[in-house]
Amino acid sequence: LWVPSLRIRRARLMSRNQVDDELVLFESRAIARYIALKAGSPLVPTETHAAARFEQAMSMEAFNFDPYASGIAVQRVSNPRRGGKSDEARVAEFAGALAGKLEGYERILSRTEYLAGDELTIADLFHLPYGAMLAPQGFTFLEDANKYPNVAR
Amino acid sequence: LWVPSLRIRRARLMSRNQVDDELVLFESRAIARYIALKAGSPLVPTETHAAARFEQAMSMEAFNFDPYASGIAVQRVSNPRRGGKSDEARVAEFAGALAGKLEGYERILSRTEYLAGDELTIADLFHLPYGAMLAPQGFTFLEDANKYPNVAR
Repeated sequence: LWVPSLRIRRARLMSRNQVDDELVLFESRAIARYIALKAGSPLVPTETHAAARFEQAMSMEAFNFDPYASGIAVQRVSNPRRGGKSDEARVAEFAGALAGKLEGYERILSRTEYLAGDELTIADLFHLPYGAMLAPQGFTFLEDANKYPNVAR
Repeated sequence: LWVPSLRIRRARLMSRNQVDDELVLFESRAIARYIALKAGSPLVPTETHAAARFEQAMSMEAFNFDPYASGIAVQRVSNPRRGGKSDEARVAEFAGALAGKLEGYERILSRTEYLAGDELTIADLFHLPYGAMLAPQGFTFLEDANKYPNVAR
């Protein structure tokens, strides 16, 4: 699995046409959206209805995936690195919550190819960094084709 | 303080020009963005740089405010309503984290009138529902003009 590095903390962006007008951005999702929009990439849809479904998918990632997946990452990866230890009660809580949310993902992905419709968008891609961390930590929901066949594909 | 009700769980949206094309959305931020874009409202900026700063502000709300403010709300408001009780160790953890994030808000709001620049956007408004809940729960950071003069105004 190829995982793009989306852990950019701050980006200094120079637009080609306005070299004087420097834009300093933080927040990885804002940076990715800006780059995609500047490039006219279909990874950020602009047509009204497609954009609405894209925003819905971005909110799913932000509120139904990231809090739990990043919660597990903090306990299992960041805490040990800082010499602390993983609070396994919290890990179990995050994992249980995430399993529930994946039922919603399964419903959506049984109807469309990707989260925002039939085209890939950055909403899908933003699931990759923490998503790739889950299996090595023993959480194989994302790959469990019996339980969530459409999430797994 | 007037607080708009943003706790819409799902909206059935009918565009005036395409009555046949019904769009069913969930996720309050996606719904608010769609309505603002349809109405051509300045609450969702579309010019490239303004949009980038708006996305940055939306990410601040989603990742630096909502997790902590909603965490406090779950413990202090939702849990007691369901007959449970507030886990005060977690409340203290959320409150401490939020106080740290507000230093970032203070830096930004010392330079611009609103979070995404000098115009009001829905990124500011999305802080209101949980923001209004903090003071009645005894957390007055948002109103503390000595500590965070620019957040307080």
